[in-house]
Amino acid sequence: MTSPIFPAAPDKQALERGPALAPRFDANGLVAAVAQHADTGEILMLAWMNDEALKLTLDTGVAHYFSRSRNGLWKKGETSGQLQIVTQVRIDCDQDAVVIKVRPQGDGGACHVGFRSCFYRVWENGQLVEREEEHVHDHA
Amino acid sequence: MTSPIFPAAPDKQALERGPALAPRFDANGLVAAVAQHADTGEILMLAWMNDEALKLTLDTGVAHYFSRSRNGLWKKGETSGQLQIVTQVRIDCDQDAVVIKVRPQGDGGACHVGFRSCFYRVWENGQLVEREEEHVHDHA
Repeated sequence: MTSPIFPAAPDKQALERGPALAPRFDANGLVAAVAQHADTGEILMLAWMNDEALKLTLDTGVAHYFSRSRNGLWKKGETSGQLQIVTQVRIDCDQDAVVIKVRPQGDGGACHVGFRSCFYRVWENGQLVEREEEHVHDHA
Repeated sequence: MTSPIFPAAPDKQALERGPALAPRFDANGLVAAVAQHADTGEILMLAWMNDEALKLTLDTGVAHYFSRSRNGLWKKGETSGQLQIVTQVRIDCDQDAVVIKVRPQGDGGACHVGFRSCFYRVWENGQLVEREEEHVHDHA
């Protein structure tokens, strides 16, 4: 889906190697966004951004998403206090997914269930076990 | 979309806190899958899994995805040698995204463009700059 905010890459070379941010929004106008803790490397959540959310994230340095359930712009933490300060934005080879490095504010969590990360369950011996990650990826 | 391979969670409590793996595949039968390097925490790629790919990933310990461009099962690395040995599988609160921790084989890369990670570009001063991550999340 084309966006009035971002250009479309003219060709594969520009898409993969060019300096222009030219996100490939899907049929619903969204790209996948992975929020990763800037300090520990822990993956906190996977959410979605439309062009407006991505633009706001880039311009304000605070993570904005598009809520599919509420069908609208979602400034993460606006009610919970779990704002995400963005320290870096990366995009993948075909520009349909972004990684944002963030520092969660408020209580430091990202998940509405109450865990630090939405990925609090591990597949183990044929079932899901709730076990948050240890900080294995702390700065050396 | 219901799957013949995985159950559906009967309610929100089971979905968010239960031990049953009950992925919520989207209208195309897919969940998002984030591959993260098991040792460094680097996010390598974002891809998609249908029920078959997820089942094969769990059963074999080697990452399988669903290729949207080729519309079929995709055993990552089958031709490139960049097989991904899976050390852990996590799922998020509403079970529509998984994180797999992997050790890339072959040349250690994951991206067809030639970089270690697909997220080799950073947004910086209004443009994309190619700069792979330093191993900031190495084991301490």
